[in-house]
This record gives sequence, structure tokens and C-alpha cells, in this order.
Amino acid sequence: MWRHSLLAALLLFVILPASISARHVAAENKKHSRVIASVKAVLNAQVDAWNRGDIEGYMAGYWRSEETVFVSGDSLTRGWQTVLARYKKNYDSRDKMGILTFSDLEITAIGSDAAVATGRWHLQRAKDEPHGRFTLIFRRTGQGWRIVHDHTS
Amino acid sequence: MWRHSLLAALLLFVILPASISARHVAAENKKHSRVIASVKAVLNAQVDAWNRGDIEGYMAGYWRSEETVFVSGDSLTRGWQTVLARYKKNYDSRDKMGILTFSDLEITAIGSDAAVATGRWHLQRAKDEPHGRFTLIFRRTGQGWRIVHDHTS
Repeated sequence: MWRHSLLAALLLFVILPASISARHVAAENKKHSRVIASVKAVLNAQVDAWNRGDIEGYMAGYWRSEETVFVSGDSLTRGWQTVLARYKKNYDSRDKMGILTFSDLEITAIGSDAAVATGRWHLQRAKDEPHGRFTLIFRRTGQGWRIVHDHTS
Repeated sequence: MWRHSLLAALLLFVILPASISARHVAAENKKHSRVIASVKAVLNAQVDAWNRGDIEGYMAGYWRSEETVFVSGDSLTRGWQTVLARYKKNYDSRDKMGILTFSDLEITAIGSDAAVATGRWHLQRAKDEPHGRFTLIFRRTGQGWRIVHDHTS
């Protein structure tokens, strides 16, 4: 009897919770890997678009909303259309766009509908190599995973 | 009979869902206001600490973790202790710390356990007034609401 109680107690308080918790962790990890893969796919598509001179394609990574925010230095740009205009103005030739690479990428899922991506950006150009860091907040939107907030330095 | 069916249909498909949805929205808004108030309280405490020359008190707003990230310009600093050391090095006198203000603050809740805060920072000092913008990612941690990622420019 004592042995059965011990077994029942073990099952109830140790084995079962551990198994449920392990399954929960596994499910969370799987969810997070999916988030990370989705975010990476958006960033890769952005780099590809940029490097074929397609700023609108690059901008497809951003949430097409008036709430989308781009922060750089001391300025804040709000709205997809305004962010697009800013990029078009600053990179008005193929030479200025150069070849973009992202590196040191770190993506952290926040639940299953948001993520933070941080990393380095680098432009290889004929005369200079501007570079810096970015922090991107991604959300799962009706349009797919999109950048809703970009802070670039 | 027809009238009763209409009433039942109205109740089932229009009135009830609208009422549930309105209650859901109200509950979400209430949750978001609580998140925003918590984040604001942390930021206010940081400003107060800074302006009495208390860098450790200011650092209490950051998650006390080796994963805490501070990005500025081209550099990334990782870990609460390392971020503290960076602040202590850059602001090694009361004069250098000056008087800090935050303004144009915008806080967006991401679910009930995370938030993004963006705004301007400004230091009033005897000889200059450095200023810029920040994007902070807050998470609800075991220590309370804390900054887990800071991108400042």
C-alpha cells in the first residue's frame, strides 16, 4: 500500500508535471523557432530586394501602416509611405544603395506574435562603407511578419 | 414565431457578440493602460535616480541579467553589469550626468508581458546639451517591468 502511494505520488507530483513541463518547453521552442525562421525570411527578402536596387521590395518587409516607425539619429519617421520616401531620397541611385549585408543577427521571440531582431548593417559602395546597428520590432500582422518599429544607428 | 426567431438571431449573432467583443476590447485596453503605467513608473524612477546622481538607481530600470542588451551607434553592450560599467565610465562625474529629461514618450504594449517605449532623451549640462532618441523593449520579469533591450542614438 505504502509503495503504491509512493508510486502514485511520484507520478502525480514528479513524473507527470515534468513530462508536461518538458512538452510545454518543447512546444514553446518549436513556436520560437518558427517565429525566428519567419523573421529571417523577411530580412533575407529585404537584402535580396535591396541588392537588386528594388527599394519598394525592400520596404515590403515593413508593416504597410501609418503607425510604422523608423528612428535614426535624432529623427523619427512615421508611416510606411513616409519611410519609403525617406529611403528613396537618401538612396536615389544604384551607386548610393551599394551592396547591403546584415550580420551578427540575433532574433528573440516575444510570445508567438512578436519578435525583436538586432544586428549589424553594412553597405559596400564604390567610395565608402557606411555601417551600423539596428533593432527591429516585428509583429505578426494580417500581411505576415512585418517590421513595425526600426531603430537604426 | 418569425418575430421570435428574428429576436433570437439578433441576440445570438449581433447583440451578444458585440457585447462580448466590446467587453474584450475594454479588458484589453485596461490591460494595456496598466502596462503603460508600469513602464512609465520605471522611466520616471530612472530619471529621478539619474538627476540625484545615482547611476545604480538608474540601472535598476534594466533587467539584472547577462542577456540585457544596450545598443548605441556601432556598438552593442551585453549584460547588466557591463552596461552599468559603460554608464559609469561615460558619466564619471555629476557634471557629466547633467539633468536628464525624457520627452515625446510613446509606449506600446505587446500583449501583457512586453512593451516598446520610444522617445527623446536630453541632458542639460553646463557646457553642452547632448540629446537623441531611444527605443526600449520592456518585459515583465521576476524583478518587475524591466528594460531588456535599449537602442539609443
